Amino acid sequence: MEKYNYGMIGLGVMGRNLLYNIAENGFSIAGFDLDDEKVKHLQDGATSKMKVKGTVSLEEFVTALETPRKIILMVPAGKPVDAVLGNITPLLSKGDIVIDAGNSYFEDTNRRISDLAAKDLHFVGMGVSGGEKGARKGPSIMPGGDLEAFKLLKPMLEAIAAKVDGEACTAYMGKGSAGNYVKMVHNGIEYAIMQLISEAYDLLRKGANLNNEQLYEVFKKWNEGEMNSFLIEITRDIFQQKDDLTNAYLVDKILDKAGAKGTGKWTSEQAMEIGVSIPTIDIAVTSRILSAYKDERVLASKLYSEKEISIPENVESFIQEVGDALYLATLISYAQGLALLVKASEEYNFEIPLKDVVKIWRGGCIIRSVLLEKFYTAYSADPNLSNILLNQEISEIVKSRIQSLRKTASFAVESGISSLGLQTALGYFDAYTTESLPVNLIQAQRDYFGAHTYQRVDREGVFHTTWNSSNQ
Amino acid sequence: MEKYNYGMIGLGVMGRNLLYNIAENGFSIAGFDLDDEKVKHLQDGATSKMKVKGTVSLEEFVTALETPRKIILMVPAGKPVDAVLGNITPLLSKGDIVIDAGNSYFEDTNRRISDLAAKDLHFVGMGVSGGEKGARKGPSIMPGGDLEAFKLLKPMLEAIAAKVDGEACTAYMGKGSAGNYVKMVHNGIEYAIMQLISEAYDLLRKGANLNNEQLYEVFKKWNEGEMNSFLIEITRDIFQQKDDLTNAYLVDKILDKAGAKGTGKWTSEQAMEIGVSIPTIDIAVTSRILSAYKDERVLASKLYSEKEISIPENVESFIQEVGDALYLATLISYAQGLALLVKASEEYNFEIPLKDVVKIWRGGCIIRSVLLEKFYTAYSADPNLSNILLNQEISEIVKSRIQSLRKTASFAVESGISSLGLQTALGYFDAYTTESLPVNLIQAQRDYFGAHTYQRVDREGVFHTTWNSSNQ
Repeated sequence: MEKYNYGMIGLGVMGRNLLYNIAENGFSIAGFDLDDEKVKHLQDGATSKMKVKGTVSLEEFVTALETPRKIILMVPAGKPVDAVLGNITPLLSKGDIVIDAGNSYFEDTNRRISDLAAKDLHFVGMGVSGGEKGARKGPSIMPGGDLEAFKLLKPMLEAIAAKVDGEACTAYMGKGSAGNYVKMVHNGIEYAIMQLISEAYDLLRKGANLNNEQLYEVFKKWNEGEMNSFLIEITRDIFQQKDDLTNAYLVDKILDKAGAKGTGKWTSEQAMEIGVSIPTIDIAVTSRILSAYKDERVLASKLYSEKEISIPENVESFIQEVGDALYLATLISYAQGLALLVKASEEYNFEIPLKDVVKIWRGGCIIRSVLLEKFYTAYSADPNLSNILLNQEISEIVKSRIQSLRKTASFAVESGISSLGLQTALGYFDAYTTESLPVNLIQAQRDYFGAHTYQRVDREGVFHTTWNSSNQ
Repeated sequence: MEKYNYGMIGLGVMGRNLLYNIAENGFSIAGFDLDDEKVKHLQDGATSKMKVKGTVSLEEFVTALETPRKIILMVPAGKPVDAVLGNITPLLSKGDIVIDAGNSYFEDTNRRISDLAAKDLHFVGMGVSGGEKGARKGPSIMPGGDLEAFKLLKPMLEAIAAKVDGEACTAYMGKGSAGNYVKMVHNGIEYAIMQLISEAYDLLRKGANLNNEQLYEVFKKWNEGEMNSFLIEITRDIFQQKDDLTNAYLVDKILDKAGAKGTGKWTSEQAMEIGVSIPTIDIAVTSRILSAYKDERVLASKLYSEKEISIPENVESFIQEVGDALYLATLISYAQGLALLVKASEEYNFEIPLKDVVKIWRGGCIIRSVLLEKFYTAYSADPNLSNILLNQEISEIVKSRIQSLRKTASFAVESGISSLGLQTALGYFDAYTTESLPVNLIQAQRDYFGAHTYQRVDREGVFHTTWNSSNQ
C-alpha cells in the first residue's frame, strides 16, 4: 500500500486549504475529519497532480502514513485538540510528530509537549497566519519547539509558505511553545492595527465627511506607498463592496458590534502577567468589548448631546495627517508587541529570534506590511534591540510623523470622535520617551497610605516615611 | 477561664490595628502570630480598657475563644491563607467562622468556602480598605458570602467601621466571594484615580511650571470643594513634606518607578474575562509597568528630542480646567469599575447591591470622596442602573466639565505630556456615548480574511460575504 508523506486532521476551510497547499507542492497527504461529508468531498478541490487521500477512520488514517508520521492538526483550540490527541496517540509509534497548527494557548502546548514526550512522541506548536486564502496560497508559518522535529518539517514548510524576495515566510521561532506565543502576539498586533484603521475611517467619514468612494481612493493611495499592507489593502476593497441585498455599500449595513476569538485578550493578559506595557493592544481588546454594549450606547447617545465637529479647512492635508498618524500608531503597536516578545523570550527561555519573526511576518500573514522590512533591517543590525523605537532609523520615521499624530489625536479629542488606539499609541510614545514620569507621586501615595516604601533618585535602598497630615 | 469574643491571626500592622479597633469597641479579642515578638508586644498598643490577649500557639488561641468562634485572618493573600487554614481547621468546631480580611483572589475564596463548608465551618471573604490608619480608626469593610455568619459579625463590623452621617461604612456585599470581588474593583478604581492625579500633577508642573508650594495650594483648594477625597487630601500633604535627608521636598527625591501588588491587574484581567470595558483602570496598570522601564526611558528620551511646551497664557484658568478634567475623569473611572460590578454580579450570581457599595465607599476607604454621595443618590433612585453615566444628574455634571477634559487632553497631546488616564477616560466616554462606532469596518475585515461573519443593521441573522479584491 502506498504511504503518504503527511496527514491532516481537521478538514474545515483552513485545514482543507493547507492540505491542498501541501499537496500542490509535491507532498502526498492523507486527510481525516469526524465529519464524513468533509472527507468525501476532499477530492473535489484537488487537482490531478495532487496526491490526496480522504480517510474515514483514525486507524485508516494512521496506517496510510509513512513513518515517522507527520500529522498536522487544524482543529479548534482547547478541548478539541486534547480530544484528538487522546484518540490518536495510542495509534502512533515512537518518533512520530504531531503538529498543532491552530491558535492554541501556549501553556496548553507546554503541557502537551510533556505529555507526548513521555510517550516518545514529538509535539510541535505552530502558528499559521493568512486566513483561508493564505492557507491555500502561502501563509506565514511560525513553528517552535522540538528542533529535531522542525528539521524534518522544514522542507515542506518552506515549500508551502509565502515568499518574499524568494525567501520563505517560515522560520524556527524558539523553544517550547514559542510558535504559539509568537502567533498570539501577531494576533494582538492585528487587533491593534484593525482598531487604528477603524479610527482613521471614523475620522475621515465623520471629521471630513468622506463617502465610501472617497474612502476607497484614500486607502488605495495609502496602499500604493509606504503604508502598503494586507489590512490597508482589504480595507480599500471593503469600501468598494456592494451589498447583494440592497445594492448599497455593504460596510454601511454591517452592525458595529465586534466579535473576538480570544487571542487578543490572551496577549493583554500575558503582557500584564510578565510586566510589559502594550496599551494599544489592550485598548483594541477593550474597544471590541465596549462595542458590544450597543443598547447602552444608543441610550447614552440620546442623553448626551451630539458633538459638534468642525470640518478641517484643508481636507487634503487632513487626510495626509490622518494617514501619517495611522502609519506611526501602527509602528508603535508593532513596537509594543515586539517588546512583549523580547520579555517573554527571557521569561520563558524561548530564545525567540526577533529578526526571524519580523522577517517571516513580511509575507503571508494578516499583519504583513512593507514596514516590516524596516524592522528586519533594524533587527539585522542589532538582534538584541529591546524596543524597536530605540533604533536610529526607526526614530527618524517617528520624528517625521509625530506632529501629524499629535494633530490628529488633538482633533479627535476636540471633536468627540473616540480614538483610543491613536491616543494610547501617542501616550505610550510620550511616556516611553520621558525620563521623568510623575510616578514619584504614585509611590509617595502608596507609601503614605500603605507603607509600601519607595526608592530614591539620589541614593540606593528602600525607604519609608511617616507622612505628616496637615489636617487638624 | 475567660473566653474572648474574637480572634485575630496575623499581627502585622494591619492585623494589630484592626485588633485594637475591635477591642476599643468593647469586644474582647485574642491574637496569634507565628512571630513571637509580635505576640509579646501586643499589649504595648492596648489601652487599659481593652480586653486583648496574645497567644503563642494555635491551640492556646483556639481554646481562648468563645464558640461559635469568630476568627479573622489578616495574612498575605495566596499560600499563607491556605497554610493557616490547614493548621487551624482541625482545631475548630462545627459552626465556627473564619473571616479572611486580606486581599484574596475571589476564586480562592470560592474554593475555601467549599472546603470549609464540607467541615461544617463558615468561611467569609471580607474586603477591608483604609490602610494602616483606617484599620485602627475606622475602615470601609466589605463582607460577603454566608448570611448566617454575616449576621453574627454585623454588630462588631458596624462598631469598628468608619461612619458617614452616623451610618457605618460596612454592608453585605453579596453571595459567595462578592466581598473580595468588590474590594478588588475598589483597588482597580484606586489605581485609576492615582494615575489621573499623577497626570494632573505632571500637567501642572511641566505645563504651567508650578512648584511644590503652588501644587500644595492647588490640591488644598481642590480638597475643600467638590473634589474633596482621601487621595486628593494626601496628595496635598505630600507636596508639603520635606525630606529628612536633604531638606528638599521629598516628592522630588522619589524615584519614578511604581510598584504594584496585583489587585489592579486582577481587575483588568477579570474585566477582559467577563467582557466589560475599563480602559482607565487598564491604563493605570500598564502605566505602572511602563514606569519600571526606567533605563529604556532614559535612552529613549535622549534619542527623541525634547518636546516643546507652550505654557498656557492664563494659568489660573488652566488650573481650573485641569481640576475639572481630573474630577470628570475620576467620575468616569468609577463608572467603569461600577459597570464591572454590575456585570460580575450577573456573571457570578453575586447579587451585589450597588447602592450599598457606593454607600460604604463614602468613608474609611482609599477611594472615599464626596462624589460618592452623588452615586449613592443615583443608585437609591435606580438600584439597577447599568452605568452611572446613564443617570440624569450625573450627566449634568459630565456635561458641565466635558469641555475642560477635552481642552486638557488636547493640551497634553500637543505638549507631549503623556496622559493616558485622561485620554482613556475621555475616549471611553466618547465611545460609550456614540451610537455608531466604526466597528462595522472591523467586522468587515474579520469576515474578509477569516470568514468570521457579521450582523446587519437592517435585518436579523448572521451573514458572510465573499469579498472582492480589486487586485489584478
